Amino acid sequence: MDPRIREHARILVEHSADIKPGDNVLVTAPAVAEDLVIALYEELGKRDANPMQMGGSSRASRAFLKAADPDAFELPDHMFAAISEADAAIRVRADLNTNEQGDVDPEVNTAFQKVRQPISEKMMEKRWVLTQHPAPGNAQDAEMSTSGYADFVYEAINKDWAAQREHQAQMVEILEDGSEVHIRSGDETDLQMSVEGMLTENDDAEHNLPGGEVFTAPVPDSVEGTVLFDMPLMAQGREVTDVYIEFEDGRVVEHGAEKNESVLSAVLNTDDGARRIGELGIGMNRSIDQFTYNMLFDEKMGDTVHLALGRAYEDTVGEDGERNESAIHMDMIVDMSEDSVIEVDGEVVQRDGTFVFEDDFGAN
Amino acid sequence: MDPRIREHARILVEHSADIKPGDNVLVTAPAVAEDLVIALYEELGKRDANPMQMGGSSRASRAFLKAADPDAFELPDHMFAAISEADAAIRVRADLNTNEQGDVDPEVNTAFQKVRQPISEKMMEKRWVLTQHPAPGNAQDAEMSTSGYADFVYEAINKDWAAQREHQAQMVEILEDGSEVHIRSGDETDLQMSVEGMLTENDDAEHNLPGGEVFTAPVPDSVEGTVLFDMPLMAQGREVTDVYIEFEDGRVVEHGAEKNESVLSAVLNTDDGARRIGELGIGMNRSIDQFTYNMLFDEKMGDTVHLALGRAYEDTVGEDGERNESAIHMDMIVDMSEDSVIEVDGEVVQRDGTFVFEDDFGAN
Repeated sequence: MDPRIREHARILVEHSADIKPGDNVLVTAPAVAEDLVIALYEELGKRDANPMQMGGSSRASRAFLKAADPDAFELPDHMFAAISEADAAIRVRADLNTNEQGDVDPEVNTAFQKVRQPISEKMMEKRWVLTQHPAPGNAQDAEMSTSGYADFVYEAINKDWAAQREHQAQMVEILEDGSEVHIRSGDETDLQMSVEGMLTENDDAEHNLPGGEVFTAPVPDSVEGTVLFDMPLMAQGREVTDVYIEFEDGRVVEHGAEKNESVLSAVLNTDDGARRIGELGIGMNRSIDQFTYNMLFDEKMGDTVHLALGRAYEDTVGEDGERNESAIHMDMIVDMSEDSVIEVDGEVVQRDGTFVFEDDFGAN
Repeated sequence: MDPRIREHARILVEHSADIKPGDNVLVTAPAVAEDLVIALYEELGKRDANPMQMGGSSRASRAFLKAADPDAFELPDHMFAAISEADAAIRVRADLNTNEQGDVDPEVNTAFQKVRQPISEKMMEKRWVLTQHPAPGNAQDAEMSTSGYADFVYEAINKDWAAQREHQAQMVEILEDGSEVHIRSGDETDLQMSVEGMLTENDDAEHNLPGGEVFTAPVPDSVEGTVLFDMPLMAQGREVTDVYIEFEDGRVVEHGAEKNESVLSAVLNTDDGARRIGELGIGMNRSIDQFTYNMLFDEKMGDTVHLALGRAYEDTVGEDGERNESAIHMDMIVDMSEDSVIEVDGEVVQRDGTFVFEDDFGAN
């Protein structure tokens, strides 16, 4: 087995999910990630934890969603029970084909996610981590060979997370001390929001591996302006490109997309919270040096900011803050590498992708 | 997809597990059975049931068992919770290599099964079914091509189970009316037991697909004599051949095996009930015309009887009967095709594999 797979498993178990003896651990992974599952089971065995694998066949999910009556969707009690009794959840993404759910009606997918919201919320109460195993479908999306993609993935994943945390702490401090955030990029993006009273998380790969971002939640009503998400995103198995959104008093008042606008509309119609922003994230993982059309990586790039429609993470909402609730959480990215600036309380903190505390900031 | 896979899924969902709208269904299957899982999810979708897939990677299990400390084994609460909340469980066997657990210490395997006994018992309270998907490892055991093995599997599985039930009812009647069962085969097997007060089940593929046996439980203390199980069996990932056992007052007093006797010993030492017989089964599925070294099929052959060490099925124990309890249930087969006879209360009911109610019985 590729030793990088064992290292990946070790970081997941030891660092991200912090597994202790007797922990009940839920491992969710598709068949193509079997090598990582084997390495995880070995690590979990060493730590005397109790593993259980939940399958993730996207072809099976598609077959179910095409055949079922969405009005009959119910919360699966057995799945909810398994997650309720788990101490930790390790979720592995890996695809032979990232389009397996591309012919499922977006409304059906939305109804399915809505009914399963208690599962997502319960998972958030646990030590959970989401990661990527390098599989051919994901490599294809990245326009890389499977082997080249594996190099890219392990570069981003198998790293010194304590050092990364220290680097990011500089940006956390800026956001914690700040209030008004202003993001400008090109002609289309000019967005303001308040993060007053909100908390900023330093993502050192606890919940996402790769980690490498700092993130907070805006005050829900404070988001004002327009934004063009110029990086494509995958939603419900479809690529949605050039999402354009206008916000007033924190709510989406206009929206459009170049490709698959209907998917965007379905997501926005999930519930009331789906029309508001639940997360502002700033990518800071410099090992990720190119877009691979995979949110888990793209949003961590040093030259990006991302906003998520829907659910805010509890840890980012201050004690007296208002938490945006929703069945969905959909991240969307703005490329900040050119003609872009982030200001906090009127001070430039990033210009064209370079942070104020990085060496080459003055060079721009 | 092979239409026989869809038919297999339909029989599992409609006939075996009798799935109703809203049922929480647990599908346990390894990666190599993905096609059947897809077909199952489609059938479950049509019936508005709620599926959940539990993975079954034998390589991952092996990695865990090799790394873990057996003294630290615990019942996994999340797995127990999932099974407790399930209405039905569909378990699919399929192997790329049936020896994946062949280098795990038998004692470790036994300890693992022991701690998970509540899961097996809870499963028995549900609508459960165990089946086989034709995979290369199982074909190899059967000394067949994968394609030829698929023909064999579907011949045994995709059949008219109502007609099969009627055929078997003739043998059920004999055992229900009878008391003393006497099994003789070759020089080594001469075994007597009482089934007085016990119930005989007609296996029409409710819990096993393929089905095709009638089975009951002996009165635990009544088993007397010697038996040579001349068909090999797989236990804990190892082949055990020519198991020889002598019973006195229902308990194993002598035992041996040609190959892997230590596995047999480990099984017998699981608990007190592991040294007594929990099941007497008589194979009656005439579509299974050769041994494939797979208990699910071999024990259903018309020319065999099988006995299981360990746990008795609740349905086979009469109201006032004594149920043999154990963490294990290990089936072992006697080939009855030659020089063999089954007598019930002194009457011959099968000679050399042919039943008294079959056309060619007189020919012997």
